[in-house]
Amino acid sequence: MSEPTNPPAPVEAPAAAAAPVAAAEGAAPAGPSKSELKKRAKEAEKAKKAAERLAREEEERKQREAADAIDNATQNYGKLPRHQSQERLGRQWLKFENITDADVGKEVLFRARLHNMRPQAAKMAFLQFRQQTETLQGVIAVSKEADVHQVSKQMVKYSQGIPAESIVVVEGEIKKADVKSCTIQQYEISIHKLFTAVESEALPFSIEDASRSEAEIERGEAEGKQYSRVSLPTRLDNRVMDLRTPTNQAIFRIQSGICNIFREHLNGLGFTEIHTPKLQGAATESGASVFKVQYFNSTAFLAQSPQLAKQMCIAADMDRVYEIAPVFRAEDSNTYRHMTEFMGLDIEMAISEHYHEVLETLDSIFKALFNGIETKYAKEVAAVRAQFGGEPFVFIDKTPVITFAEGIAMLREAGATDFDGSPLPEDADLSTENEKFLGRLVKDKYKTDYFIMDKFPAGFRPFYSMPDPTNPNVVNSYDFYLRGEEILSGAQRIHDPEFLTERLVALGMNPAEFKSYIDAFRLGCPPHGGGGIGLERVVFLYLALGNIRRASLFPRDPKRLTP
Amino acid sequence: MSEPTNPPAPVEAPAAAAAPVAAAEGAAPAGPSKSELKKRAKEAEKAKKAAERLAREEEERKQREAADAIDNATQNYGKLPRHQSQERLGRQWLKFENITDADVGKEVLFRARLHNMRPQAAKMAFLQFRQQTETLQGVIAVSKEADVHQVSKQMVKYSQGIPAESIVVVEGEIKKADVKSCTIQQYEISIHKLFTAVESEALPFSIEDASRSEAEIERGEAEGKQYSRVSLPTRLDNRVMDLRTPTNQAIFRIQSGICNIFREHLNGLGFTEIHTPKLQGAATESGASVFKVQYFNSTAFLAQSPQLAKQMCIAADMDRVYEIAPVFRAEDSNTYRHMTEFMGLDIEMAISEHYHEVLETLDSIFKALFNGIETKYAKEVAAVRAQFGGEPFVFIDKTPVITFAEGIAMLREAGATDFDGSPLPEDADLSTENEKFLGRLVKDKYKTDYFIMDKFPAGFRPFYSMPDPTNPNVVNSYDFYLRGEEILSGAQRIHDPEFLTERLVALGMNPAEFKSYIDAFRLGCPPHGGGGIGLERVVFLYLALGNIRRASLFPRDPKRLTP
Repeated sequence: MSEPTNPPAPVEAPAAAAAPVAAAEGAAPAGPSKSELKKRAKEAEKAKKAAERLAREEEERKQREAADAIDNATQNYGKLPRHQSQERLGRQWLKFENITDADVGKEVLFRARLHNMRPQAAKMAFLQFRQQTETLQGVIAVSKEADVHQVSKQMVKYSQGIPAESIVVVEGEIKKADVKSCTIQQYEISIHKLFTAVESEALPFSIEDASRSEAEIERGEAEGKQYSRVSLPTRLDNRVMDLRTPTNQAIFRIQSGICNIFREHLNGLGFTEIHTPKLQGAATESGASVFKVQYFNSTAFLAQSPQLAKQMCIAADMDRVYEIAPVFRAEDSNTYRHMTEFMGLDIEMAISEHYHEVLETLDSIFKALFNGIETKYAKEVAAVRAQFGGEPFVFIDKTPVITFAEGIAMLREAGATDFDGSPLPEDADLSTENEKFLGRLVKDKYKTDYFIMDKFPAGFRPFYSMPDPTNPNVVNSYDFYLRGEEILSGAQRIHDPEFLTERLVALGMNPAEFKSYIDAFRLGCPPHGGGGIGLERVVFLYLALGNIRRASLFPRDPKRLTP
Repeated sequence: MSEPTNPPAPVEAPAAAAAPVAAAEGAAPAGPSKSELKKRAKEAEKAKKAAERLAREEEERKQREAADAIDNATQNYGKLPRHQSQERLGRQWLKFENITDADVGKEVLFRARLHNMRPQAAKMAFLQFRQQTETLQGVIAVSKEADVHQVSKQMVKYSQGIPAESIVVVEGEIKKADVKSCTIQQYEISIHKLFTAVESEALPFSIEDASRSEAEIERGEAEGKQYSRVSLPTRLDNRVMDLRTPTNQAIFRIQSGICNIFREHLNGLGFTEIHTPKLQGAATESGASVFKVQYFNSTAFLAQSPQLAKQMCIAADMDRVYEIAPVFRAEDSNTYRHMTEFMGLDIEMAISEHYHEVLETLDSIFKALFNGIETKYAKEVAAVRAQFGGEPFVFIDKTPVITFAEGIAMLREAGATDFDGSPLPEDADLSTENEKFLGRLVKDKYKTDYFIMDKFPAGFRPFYSMPDPTNPNVVNSYDFYLRGEEILSGAQRIHDPEFLTERLVALGMNPAEFKSYIDAFRLGCPPHGGGGIGLERVVFLYLALGNIRRASLFPRDPKRLTP
C-alpha cells in the first residue's frame, strides 16, 4: 500500500499572477520593442494558464477537503455513551473462541479489549482484539466510494488513537487469514464499525511484557533486543492489569477447576459440605499465631483452621464432611510459600477400622485432581508452562507411603545434614531443604513427584494427634508432598476427652486452656481423622510457579493487604 | 415372658434337723410310749428327707450360681479398647439405609449410636440404634445353652447400662420385623455381640425432646403428657448434641445441596469460581459496620462482602465469576434474621446490553435451587417439615418482576402504613413489616412465594449502583424476595471512575476515601452487575425454620461466639 499523498503544498501563485496586472497599468514612458511585446504576450499567456491551472487545482483541493470534512463514516465510529442499560436489542455477541469456517463472510458483532495497534500510514491500521485468552486480528482501511461499508480517513485516524486496553465494540466481516501474531490464526475481521465503550487510562505495563517467559527474554537479549521484565510486586500492585495475561487467566481457571474436582470427588464418596465460623470465641489451637478481632466490647479470633468445627461435625454424626474456606495465620513469615490468608480444602471423616481409610481417601482426592487437571485443563496447563516452564508433573498409580523413620533413613544414607551442618540425626525434624532433598530421593527411587510420609514423631505434631498403638513416640499422622514440599497435613485425632486431657498434661500444656475443645467430645465422638490441603500450594507447586502469591488472586502477606 | 425366679429363700433347716439328734441323746428317765416312738420315728424320717431336699436344693443353687458366674458370653460384650487403629481387618460395616430383604438371616456388623433402651426384666432388652437419620431396633435376650450365639444374663445387664448416645459396635442377625418406633420398620437385629466403642457422658437433653414438633407437644399436652421443650439457646449451647437430630441432619444436607446446585448451574453458564481475601487494607464500602483486625503493627478489616474484589475480577477480564465465602457484618442487630458472620453466594458478570441479563441469570439460579431441593432432597424437606411445619414453598414459571414504585403502589392501595402509622408515602423506604405485607399481596396476586423488585430509589442503594438511563432518581438495582423477606440484593454497578467520583460527590461523600475502589476501574472495566445471596436466609426462609440461626451449623451473633 502506497503512502497517502499530503494536501498539495501551496505554490506562490498570487505573486506570479500579479505580473500581468502591473504591466497593464504602465503605458509610458518608453514603449517596448516588438519582440519585447511578443515575449511579454507569451509570458502573459503562460502566466494566465498557470493562474488558471492553480485556480483549478485550488478549486479541486477545496472540493476534496469539503468532501473529506463531510466524513461519510461518522455513524461508524466514536465513543459510545456511558452504558446504563439504555436498550436491549438482543443482538448476537461473538466469542472469538467460537469462530468457525461457517462465520467466514458473515457480518459479526463483538466486544473486546484493544490489545494493540499497528498503524499503516493514514489509510489503514491493524488492530489486535483480545477476549480473555484469545486474540483476533482486525484490519481497518479507508473504503472506496462504492463500498457498502464506509470507512473514512477520520475513522482510521480514530482507530489509531484509542488507548490500549480500552474496551471496544466492533462490527465487521470475518475473513479467512493467516495471522501468526494472534491466537486466532485462521481468521481476521475486516472492520466496518468501531466504537469505544470504555477507555483505559495509562497502563502500568503492557500485557506483552507481563506475558513473556524468562526464556523468551533471554533469547531476545541474546539477539540484542531490550525487553522489560515486570517484577512480582509491580504485578501485585497492579493486579487487575496483571490478571489479564493469558497465563493468569489460565492459572485461575485451573484453581477453580481444582475446587470443582475436589468437591465432585468427595460428593461421590458421600461427604457433606460444611461452612464453619471463622470468628472464634477462643484461640483453640496452640502453635500458629492467631489474628485478634475487635468484637463489639470483646475479642474474637480468626480461625487458623476449621479443625475443631469439623471435628464437632463428626461428633454430631455428620460422618464425612468437607469445607473449602479461608484460613488465617498471623505468622510473620515472608517467604515464597507463606501467606497470612489462604484457602483450605479440609476434610474430616469417621473411620471404621483404621486411619489409613482417611489417608487413602485423601490420596484418591489427589489422584482425581492430577488426572482432572491434565485432562480437563490441558490447554490452560500448556499456557502456563509456556510462560513458566517447569518440568511436567509425574506420579505413579500406587502412591509411595513411607514412614518418617524411613524418610530420615533415606536422607541419612544420602548424606543429608542437619541445620548446623552435622550429619542428620535419627530424631531430626525436617528442614525445608531436607524435605526437598527427600523429594528428589523419592523421585529417583519411585519416579514420582508425589508421595506420602506417615507416622510422624509425636513431638512434631499437634496434641490431638492419636498415638500409634504400639509405639507411643509416633502418632497416626501424615504429610503429603508435591515436588518435595508439603501440601497436606493430617492425622487420626484423639476422640476421647480423658485421653486428650492426659496428652495435654504429658506435653506440659494446661488442659484448662483447651476446655471448650475437650468438651466437644464429651457426648461421644466416633474415631475419626482428616486433613487440610492448601489450595494455593497445590496450584503453585503443580504448575511450578515459583511463588505462592502467583496462585492467589489478591494475595495477603505480612506486608500486603491491597489491592 | 415370666419373671425370673429369685434364689430360694433360706428355710430354717438346721433348727428342724436338730430334733432327732437331741432325741437320740436322751434314754432315761421315762421311756416313751410305743405310739410315741412310732410318731417320733416318722418325724425323724420326715426331717431327714427335708434335710436331704434342702441340701440338694442348696447344691443345685450353688451349681447354678457357679454356672452364672462363669458367664459364657464374656467375649461377646464389653468396652472396646481405645481406637488407635490397632488393626485393619477389612470387615463389612453395615449402613442401615442399605438393608434389604437379601440381608434377612445374615450376620451383620455395624457401628451406631445407642439411641435408647427399654429393658424387659433381666433377661431381655430392646435397644434402638441410630445412624444419622435412620434408627433400627435391636433385640437382646439371654440365649439357651444350645444356641450358637451365647448371650448371658450379664451381657443383657450390660446392654441395659450403656449410657444413651454412646457409640456401640454390634453384631447380629437381621430379621424381618414390624417396628413402628424406628425409621427402619421392616427389619430388626437379633443382637449376638455388643461392644461400647465410645461412652457418652450425661446428656443436656434427649434427641427425642429435641426432635418433637410443636404440634406434637401440644397434642401430647392435650392428652395430659408432659414434654420438655428444648429452647434455641440450649440447643446452640449444646450444638453437637442438637445437630444429631434427624431434622438437623436434613437441614445441613439441604444447605450443602444448595451450594452444589448453585455451582453446577453457574459452571454450566461459563462462570469461574473465585476466592477473594477476607482481610482488607481499608473498609471499602460505606454503610454496614466493619470488624477491625489487629494485623501485625497495623489494622485490617474483615470484608463485609466480596464486592470490590469480584468487580476487580471483571475488570481483569474474568467475564463471569462466583464465590461462596463468609461475609462479616459488625452490626449489633439481635434479630431472628441477622448474624455477624454468614455465607454469601456471590456472582458478578459482564453484561452485553442490559443489566436484566444479570437479573435473569440470578433468577435462573433460584429456579435451579427450588427445583433441585424439591427433587433431590424431597426426603430431607419432608423430615424438616415434620418438625417445623411451614407451608410448602410455591413459585411460578415466570417470576414477577415489579418496580419499587409498583410495589409501593400495591402497598398504598392495600392500606399499608409507614413507621409512624401514617399512610405509606410514595417515597417510603420499606420496613420489614411492609416487605412481608408486600410478599402477601404478591402471593395473592401471582400465587408465588418468590418475586423480584427492580429499580430502587437511588438513596436506598450503595453509591456504586448505576442510575437508570432516563430517571436519575432510581438505580438499576433489584432485590429478590422469598416468603416476603429479602434474600438477594444486587445491581448494575458503575464501571466508570469519573462517574463514580461524580456520584460520590452528589451523595455528599468524599471520593478520596474511596480512592482504591475508584482506581480499580481506571484501566477499563466492562459494564457489569451482580448480586449476593445469603445462604442461611435461603435455607431458613425456604424451610420456614423461623430463625436464621437454625440454618447455621455454629451461628455467630453479637452475643454468641461459641461453640
